[in-house]
Amino acid sequence: MSILIREGRSEDVPAIMELVRELALYEKAPEEVSNTEERMLKEGFGDNPAFGSFLAEEDGKVVGMSLYYYRYSTWKGRRLYLEDIIVNESKRGSGIGKLLFDKTIEKAKEEDCSGMMWQVLDWNTPAIEFYKKYNARFDEGWVNCHLDF
Amino acid sequence: MSILIREGRSEDVPAIMELVRELALYEKAPEEVSNTEERMLKEGFGDNPAFGSFLAEEDGKVVGMSLYYYRYSTWKGRRLYLEDIIVNESKRGSGIGKLLFDKTIEKAKEEDCSGMMWQVLDWNTPAIEFYKKYNARFDEGWVNCHLDF
Repeated sequence: MSILIREGRSEDVPAIMELVRELALYEKAPEEVSNTEERMLKEGFGDNPAFGSFLAEEDGKVVGMSLYYYRYSTWKGRRLYLEDIIVNESKRGSGIGKLLFDKTIEKAKEEDCSGMMWQVLDWNTPAIEFYKKYNARFDEGWVNCHLDF
Repeated sequence: MSILIREGRSEDVPAIMELVRELALYEKAPEEVSNTEERMLKEGFGDNPAFGSFLAEEDGKVVGMSLYYYRYSTWKGRRLYLEDIIVNESKRGSGIGKLLFDKTIEKAKEEDCSGMMWQVLDWNTPAIEFYKKYNARFDEGWVNCHLDF
């Protein structure tokens, strides 16, 4: 297996959205995806991009990605937030997730962040076990709230 | 009561950090605040600020604030995230929170966000009841994960 980890580019938007839809299916909420390729292209790859990404490529094909941006913790200062880390189902368990996760941690450190944050669903045991290996800290009892316009 | 809602400025950092520490105490985690006024000044009020804020002022004194920034939902597109909304303990229940919350929603709409997001602790009933009046959607089962550098 030869995996290349590289930054996402505008022409990757279709592959990124395909992975996003795959994750939404795994997280049992496919109907929640209202984002479109056009919107992602405009918001992520113009002036002042709303996010950054790393893609995992095998033989020229995108097989995984991490998508991140910066948040501001009033308690901890500027932090990198890992919004999504996704590996194509047929490639899971082969170490690609670790390559993407490590690359994202490296980016957070380069950018002088006080730390990295992300969320996991409480039933996603494989992911939780993976994060435990990094000695991640888990905070329960928070509820995500949304207003959609 | 005459309350002015205005944007936060660099000279407000001491008042903002005082409110942040007040919230951490209310959320039973005062020891979690490692941010400093110097760091907040540099990260929030230089080039490319990491957050924005609205302050509530009564007779020239800061009595509350909302602090926000933008996030990117791969499912929903660009969203405003309300990191903190805090009203000085002696002023709670007087409608200041609503003024700040409404102003922040207005900002999210002006910025063409697909929605607004925030988090609440599952035991914070007064806040949850307040958000229900806005028909907010609540997502449970997510765990916050952190790596501190």
